[in-house]
Amino acid sequence: MKIEIITIGDEILIGQIVDTNSAWMSAELTKNGFEVLKIESVGDNPTQIKEAINLGFEHVDILLLTGGIGPTNDDITKNVLCDYFQSSLVFSNDVLANILEVFSNRNLELNELTRNQAFVPEKAKVIQNKVGTAPILWFNKDENKVLVSMPGVPFEMKWVMKNEIIPRLQSKFSSEQYLQKSFMIAGITESKLAILLKNFEDELPQNYSLAYLPSFGIIRLRLFTRGSQNQEGLEKQAVKLKQILKDLMLSDVELTLEELIGKSLNEKCLTISTAESCTGGFIAHKITLIPGSSNYYKGSIVAYSNQIKTNILYIKKETIDKFGAVSQEVVEEMAKGVSELFHTDCSIAVSGIAGPDGGTDEKPVGTVWVCTKIKDKKVSVLYHTGRAREENISRATNMALLQFYKLLKQYN
Amino acid sequence: MKIEIITIGDEILIGQIVDTNSAWMSAELTKNGFEVLKIESVGDNPTQIKEAINLGFEHVDILLLTGGIGPTNDDITKNVLCDYFQSSLVFSNDVLANILEVFSNRNLELNELTRNQAFVPEKAKVIQNKVGTAPILWFNKDENKVLVSMPGVPFEMKWVMKNEIIPRLQSKFSSEQYLQKSFMIAGITESKLAILLKNFEDELPQNYSLAYLPSFGIIRLRLFTRGSQNQEGLEKQAVKLKQILKDLMLSDVELTLEELIGKSLNEKCLTISTAESCTGGFIAHKITLIPGSSNYYKGSIVAYSNQIKTNILYIKKETIDKFGAVSQEVVEEMAKGVSELFHTDCSIAVSGIAGPDGGTDEKPVGTVWVCTKIKDKKVSVLYHTGRAREENISRATNMALLQFYKLLKQYN
Repeated sequence: MKIEIITIGDEILIGQIVDTNSAWMSAELTKNGFEVLKIESVGDNPTQIKEAINLGFEHVDILLLTGGIGPTNDDITKNVLCDYFQSSLVFSNDVLANILEVFSNRNLELNELTRNQAFVPEKAKVIQNKVGTAPILWFNKDENKVLVSMPGVPFEMKWVMKNEIIPRLQSKFSSEQYLQKSFMIAGITESKLAILLKNFEDELPQNYSLAYLPSFGIIRLRLFTRGSQNQEGLEKQAVKLKQILKDLMLSDVELTLEELIGKSLNEKCLTISTAESCTGGFIAHKITLIPGSSNYYKGSIVAYSNQIKTNILYIKKETIDKFGAVSQEVVEEMAKGVSELFHTDCSIAVSGIAGPDGGTDEKPVGTVWVCTKIKDKKVSVLYHTGRAREENISRATNMALLQFYKLLKQYN
Repeated sequence: MKIEIITIGDEILIGQIVDTNSAWMSAELTKNGFEVLKIESVGDNPTQIKEAINLGFEHVDILLLTGGIGPTNDDITKNVLCDYFQSSLVFSNDVLANILEVFSNRNLELNELTRNQAFVPEKAKVIQNKVGTAPILWFNKDENKVLVSMPGVPFEMKWVMKNEIIPRLQSKFSSEQYLQKSFMIAGITESKLAILLKNFEDELPQNYSLAYLPSFGIIRLRLFTRGSQNQEGLEKQAVKLKQILKDLMLSDVELTLEELIGKSLNEKCLTISTAESCTGGFIAHKITLIPGSSNYYKGSIVAYSNQIKTNILYIKKETIDKFGAVSQEVVEEMAKGVSELFHTDCSIAVSGIAGPDGGTDEKPVGTVWVCTKIKDKKVSVLYHTGRAREENISRATNMALLQFYKLLKQYN
């Protein structure tokens, strides 16, 4: 069953926020057998919203709208929907009761604007939003066409989608299962990989596809088809693909590097700590985003000055003086120092120049040394990431995690 | 001048990636006087791409396409554009020369698929992509309508937009300047703020608008209009608004909390360090994203186990035993410990339960203590963030930065 997502809000069109809702919704909907045909962002403008709805219903049966339903004047979605469905607003005591409950949990006091959120279009089926004050509005345009309006606040939207909307869509519409296998590939460029896989792609049955998604040294390869009858066929193609990929394949499940690392550390009963200079805590953040990471992750020293490197990580001052803070010698001492300090089996240490300042002719912005260590085995690699600070931090983090995961895979 | 952005790729529609390109492009275009009317994401599908182009040209004069121009089979944008503009492919030696240069910088070898990227539609004006292998294609549909196709890889797109596309669009089209003033507000709910500003909004001239963007305890308020003739009027409204907002206003420039903190620390010649438990390095990451942060930021201890808290941060074992790791007493010792260890004037310390495990009846998931400290002044606050791990980490980080910024503002 085909779906279009319409996200509403001027803040999206002026680039004030990144629309992360659509990706989350698309992933959930795809997993549950729906097909997202289009994602569209429009402003807080009645004409644009109505046009998006009209056009949407020409192509799909389900329109999911987020945003524009807060208590303030710039939130106009509810009124536009009243107009579109020729419905008037009625006061819902159920919605008011829900608002009062949400507010009492947060020790907030009701005011007129929030109370107004209990006015709902007469023709909408109202679904209570247990985690916020804006109700969810479900409109049946006709027997087979549905429009649902929900909040744009990410955690509210997520709660509402998971608990209320997806289950209802599933019981109303049948859906053909989306089947996919993902493979994480490293050590090859996208075009070389495509050449390697040319025959495989040519021989793929018609309803199967292969997609490439490169990002910072890793290519995510996605083999996909639809319909539960193809489950076995997909498995067969996946086996064939793996035989071609061999050692290029890091993983045949779609996990992030930090998830793969966590899984493997747990399996091998190893612990890890990190020492970060230019990545400034981003490696620690990536690792600790994973639930249960406290099982294997002990902590990090973010050393943003040479003094900290010598005082806390016990890097020899001579090493820094002789080789510079961004050097193989220093990252190796950092890796050793942090694993001793935190009593861990493994460590990752990074030192580099994130920019925009601090670069020299010999060591320009983007120069990064990474040392990864498991007990007495260590690997140190020099990278050249790029010019922009944020990109350098992300790339260096990714490279460090990848380098560590490769070492970890080999370690028994 | 009105613009539509069309991002192309199945990976967006199945939620495999978050489209961060559109927000970046929209912000840059808005800043440069263009108006983004719509953002649309479609799959790697010729019919959908052509329909999006047709519809787009009904409403705007400039269509910016990203994605679908890599070397692999799933990248079809170039062929769809050939078809749409009834153009055939010709080989461009200039593009090949550029590809060879990009590849030699990265020590890569040319292969057939990458070489094929030098085939370009005859009717396109080709702009060289100095940071990647896929050329930029600029089509003049007629005198006043333009379509530009560019790579979806974020850093390539950014380079191309800044250096090639925006300057060319500016010289071809006139644009009415977008004028805005942003205000960061804390300590009030969105609806209460709207009530406070009701009269101000009612009295706003017709071509002015006010928009609310709430996020984790902070509301970004945006007052905006168009046309350089309104510059003075906007300033006048801003003054009026500030008189109403008074102490609720954290800042009248649109900076992130970490930018505001950096600016203020520099002005006051203060240094800072952080000690993080549940936020796992995210505070350090946010602070170090800011260029020049090494001026005031010395580093962080990410302490993911109690043992580290006692061994490195010198928290007394009795304090943890008596009050628990998530307690006012422990965060205060963490703040003291880290500022002594790093010899900094200020510190932020956080301890909490990010979940999904580790919660108790007394201290459920989402319980977070934050201590912020400047020399002998300190503030400790207990927060209840939420239930989901990622949300808790983000909220706790935001709350900690906000709490520190408030303390810093008062400090002379």
